[in-house]
Amino acid sequence: MKGLSKIGSAVILAAGRGSRMRQGGLPKPLVRFMGMPLIERSIRALHSSGIGRFVVVTGYRGEEVARFVTDLGGRLGVEVVPVENRRWREGNGTSLLAARGVVDGPFVLAMADHLLSLELIQGLFAAGDPGQGLVLAVDTCLENGLIDPDDVTRVYLEQGAISAIAKGLDRYNGYDTGLFLCSPAIFPVLEELVAKGEAQVTALVRALAAQGRARAVELQGPFWADLDDPAAFRRAEKAMLRAMKGKHHDGPVSRLLNRPISIELSRRLVWTGVTPNQVTVASFLLALAAAFLLSRPSYLWFAAGGVLAQAASIIDGCDGEIARMKWLQSDYGAWLDAVLDRYADACLLTGITWHVANYRLTEAWGWLLGLLAIIGSLINSYTADKYDGWVRRRGMGHRFRLGRDVRIFLVMLSSLLYRPVELLAILAGLMNAENVRRIWAMRRA
Amino acid sequence: MKGLSKIGSAVILAAGRGSRMRQGGLPKPLVRFMGMPLIERSIRALHSSGIGRFVVVTGYRGEEVARFVTDLGGRLGVEVVPVENRRWREGNGTSLLAARGVVDGPFVLAMADHLLSLELIQGLFAAGDPGQGLVLAVDTCLENGLIDPDDVTRVYLEQGAISAIAKGLDRYNGYDTGLFLCSPAIFPVLEELVAKGEAQVTALVRALAAQGRARAVELQGPFWADLDDPAAFRRAEKAMLRAMKGKHHDGPVSRLLNRPISIELSRRLVWTGVTPNQVTVASFLLALAAAFLLSRPSYLWFAAGGVLAQAASIIDGCDGEIARMKWLQSDYGAWLDAVLDRYADACLLTGITWHVANYRLTEAWGWLLGLLAIIGSLINSYTADKYDGWVRRRGMGHRFRLGRDVRIFLVMLSSLLYRPVELLAILAGLMNAENVRRIWAMRRA
Repeated sequence: MKGLSKIGSAVILAAGRGSRMRQGGLPKPLVRFMGMPLIERSIRALHSSGIGRFVVVTGYRGEEVARFVTDLGGRLGVEVVPVENRRWREGNGTSLLAARGVVDGPFVLAMADHLLSLELIQGLFAAGDPGQGLVLAVDTCLENGLIDPDDVTRVYLEQGAISAIAKGLDRYNGYDTGLFLCSPAIFPVLEELVAKGEAQVTALVRALAAQGRARAVELQGPFWADLDDPAAFRRAEKAMLRAMKGKHHDGPVSRLLNRPISIELSRRLVWTGVTPNQVTVASFLLALAAAFLLSRPSYLWFAAGGVLAQAASIIDGCDGEIARMKWLQSDYGAWLDAVLDRYADACLLTGITWHVANYRLTEAWGWLLGLLAIIGSLINSYTADKYDGWVRRRGMGHRFRLGRDVRIFLVMLSSLLYRPVELLAILAGLMNAENVRRIWAMRRA
Repeated sequence: MKGLSKIGSAVILAAGRGSRMRQGGLPKPLVRFMGMPLIERSIRALHSSGIGRFVVVTGYRGEEVARFVTDLGGRLGVEVVPVENRRWREGNGTSLLAARGVVDGPFVLAMADHLLSLELIQGLFAAGDPGQGLVLAVDTCLENGLIDPDDVTRVYLEQGAISAIAKGLDRYNGYDTGLFLCSPAIFPVLEELVAKGEAQVTALVRALAAQGRARAVELQGPFWADLDDPAAFRRAEKAMLRAMKGKHHDGPVSRLLNRPISIELSRRLVWTGVTPNQVTVASFLLALAAAFLLSRPSYLWFAAGGVLAQAASIIDGCDGEIARMKWLQSDYGAWLDAVLDRYADACLLTGITWHVANYRLTEAWGWLLGLLAIIGSLINSYTADKYDGWVRRRGMGHRFRLGRDVRIFLVMLSSLLYRPVELLAILAGLMNAENVRRIWAMRRA
C-alpha cells in the first residue's frame, strides 16, 4: 500500500462512442455490466484503492455522462471533475490532453470501458513512482481468455522496457491493460503528438518509451477486460461469475451446493436495485421463519423448516457476491452479515431445541443437548476468524472446513429424516470437538 | 512500520559492572526487574519490534552473561552473538567499538540496563535512516517522573539538531534515552575518540553532532528508564503497574475492581515461573468449578459459585498483565484467552440455567431464558472485537462498556442475593439489547 498515499487522483477517459456496444441507446460509459454502468465500476474500483478525486473526460453525449458522474461523486463522497473534450473524434490522446491543468502530481489513467480489478490496480500501484513519464500495467499472460487477441493492444517488452506497442504486433509478450500511472510531465509530449495528428495514447507510450520514460509493470493474468462488444461482455461476465466461486474459506457444502445456486441468483439480482445489506436482512428473516417452523411439533413443519433454513443459507451467499460484483463491499456490511448469521444460527438451534425438549426428549437433557450445540456452534464461529486467517497465511487449504455451511446442511438433512435429537447430539459433539481441535492446531504452530 | 524492514540487528551494551545495583551478586544485565533479567527484557522488547539478530557486548563477568544470552537466543529462535570487550573498564565506547565488524548495515544500539517500551522503539524506528551517522531517541518530557534528573544524560536541541549532550548540562531540553539507530560509518570516528581516551558513547554523539551526522528524534515522555539503583527500580515498577491500568477497552467493573486486584497479583506472579497461558487455563478451570457450584440446589453453593466466578474473572486479567510486564505477549495467547473466556461464560450461564430450570422456574421457560442469556452473551463477545476497534478509531471513550466484566459481576451480585431467575432475565435482556445497539451505532457511522 506504499504507493497509494502519493496517487490521489485518476483521469478516466469516457469520451468515445463505443459504436460496437450500445445498450438501449446509452452512451458507452453508461452501459451496464452486471447491473452497473461501466464508468461507475471504474470509479468505485479506483475509489476502493484510495483514489478520492476523479477527472472524467467526456465527449460523445458528454452532458449525460457528466451529469451521471457528478451525481455519483456526491453519493460516494468523492470529488468528480467532468471535463469536456470537443475533439474526442480525433483520438483518445485528445481526451487525455483535455485533463491537462486539472491534475497536478502523478495520477492514474484508466479507460471508462475497461473492467478493473483490485489485483490489477494494486499491482500497478506497487510499481511506485512514474518519474517524469508513465508506468503501464502489462498483462503477460497471453492465454488470458478474457482478451480478444485480434483487438487488444499488444506490447513487446525487452528486459522490462517497452520496446514496441501496437495492435497487431507480430512479436509480443504482453497486453496493454489500459491502466497507467502518469506524471503531468507527459502533457508537453502529448501536445506535440496531437499537433502532429498522432492523437492516440498508444502513440504517447511509444514516444515516451523511446525516451526511456515509459516503464511496464508485468502482471501475470490479473482480472481485467476491454468491453468492446457483446461477446466481450459475455466472456467477462462468465469469468467474473467463475471468480466468485473461488472464495477461499468456503466450506464443502458452500462450494458444492450453496455457491453455484447463490451465484446464479446474484447474477440476476445485480440487475435489480437490491443492496447487499437488504439481502443480508432478508436471509436473516427467512432463518427466523425457519426457526419457528422447526419448533412446531409435526414432521411436516419441521421438515419445511429445515429446507427453509438451507434456502436462507444459500441466499446468505448473495450479499457478499452482489457486493463484490458491484464494488459495494463495506466493513459494516460484512460485520452485519456475520452478526446476523450468529443470531440466525442461534435461533435455528433454539427452534430445534424447543422441538426436542417439548416433543421428543422431554427431560432436562433435551435442553442441555441443545445448549451444548448452540454453544459449540457460536464458539465455532468465534474461533473461525483467527483460525481461517492462520490457515490462509500458512497457505494450507482447508481440506474440510467445518463451519456454518456444514451445520445448516446437517439441519436440513436431519429435518428431512426427522432426527432432531440426533442432530443436536451430532452438532454438540462435532462443533465442540472442532473448537478443541482448532485450539490444538494453533498451539502446535 | 516502514523503517523496521531495514533495521535487522541490534547491539546491546552489557559490559558494565553496575556497582550501584546488584541483586544477589548477579552481574547487572542478569539482575531481574519484575521477575525478568534486564538483558532478556531488552532482547524481547527489540525482538517484538522485528529485530532478529543481537550482538551483546559483555565485559564484567562476561562469560555468565554470554551463556545466558546464547541460551535465550536458542529459546527465542533469534541469532545472538556475544562479543567480549576486555577493555570495558575504560568506558562504554570501547564496548560499542567491540561490535565493529560484527554488524553490517544500520543497527539499533541499546543499553542492557535500560527499560525499553514499544512506543520508544517504534518512535525511534519511525525516524528512518541514520545516514552516515546516528539518530538518538530524545525524551523531551523534562518532568518524566521515571528519570533521576541528576544522573541522566541531558541533551540540548536547537531546531532538532543536537547542540550539546552531557550529564549536568545547565541548559537542556531533553534526556538521552540511550536508544540509537547507528550506521556502521560511526566506527572510524569512535576508534579515533577511543584512541584519544574519550571512550564514551556520549563523546561519540558529540563528535558526530559537530559534523552534522547526529540527529535527534524527539519523543514526548515515552516509557523508558535507566535502572541504576534500587530507587530507580522502585520508580519504574510503580510506573509499569500504573500503565497496566490504562487498558483502553476495560469495562467499568474491570477498571474499578478487577484490574487493581489482578495487577497486585501479577506483580507477585512475575517472580514465579508461571506463564500467561498457565494463568489462562487456571482461570478457566476456576470458572468451570464455579459453574458446577452454581448448578447445585442450595443457596450456599450457589453463592459460593458466584464469588468463585468473580475470582476467576479477576485472575483472568493476570495473563495479559504478566505477558505485558515480561514481553511474553503472543497472538496465540490472546486468542486462547478469548476462546476459553467464551467457554467459561457459556459454562457459568449453563450452570445457572440448570439451577433455574431444575429448582426455580421448572418449566421450559427457565431453559429458554438461560438460552437467551447465553446467546446474547456469546454474541456480545462476538460483536465486541470489531465494535471496540471502531470506537477506538473514532477516539471515543466507552462511557460504560457493557461486556464480560459487567456480566460476571452481575453473576456474583445475584448469586449473593440468590436471584438466579432475575439474573438470567437481566442478562438475556441486557446483552441482546446491547448487540442491537451496537448494530445500530455502527450503521449510523
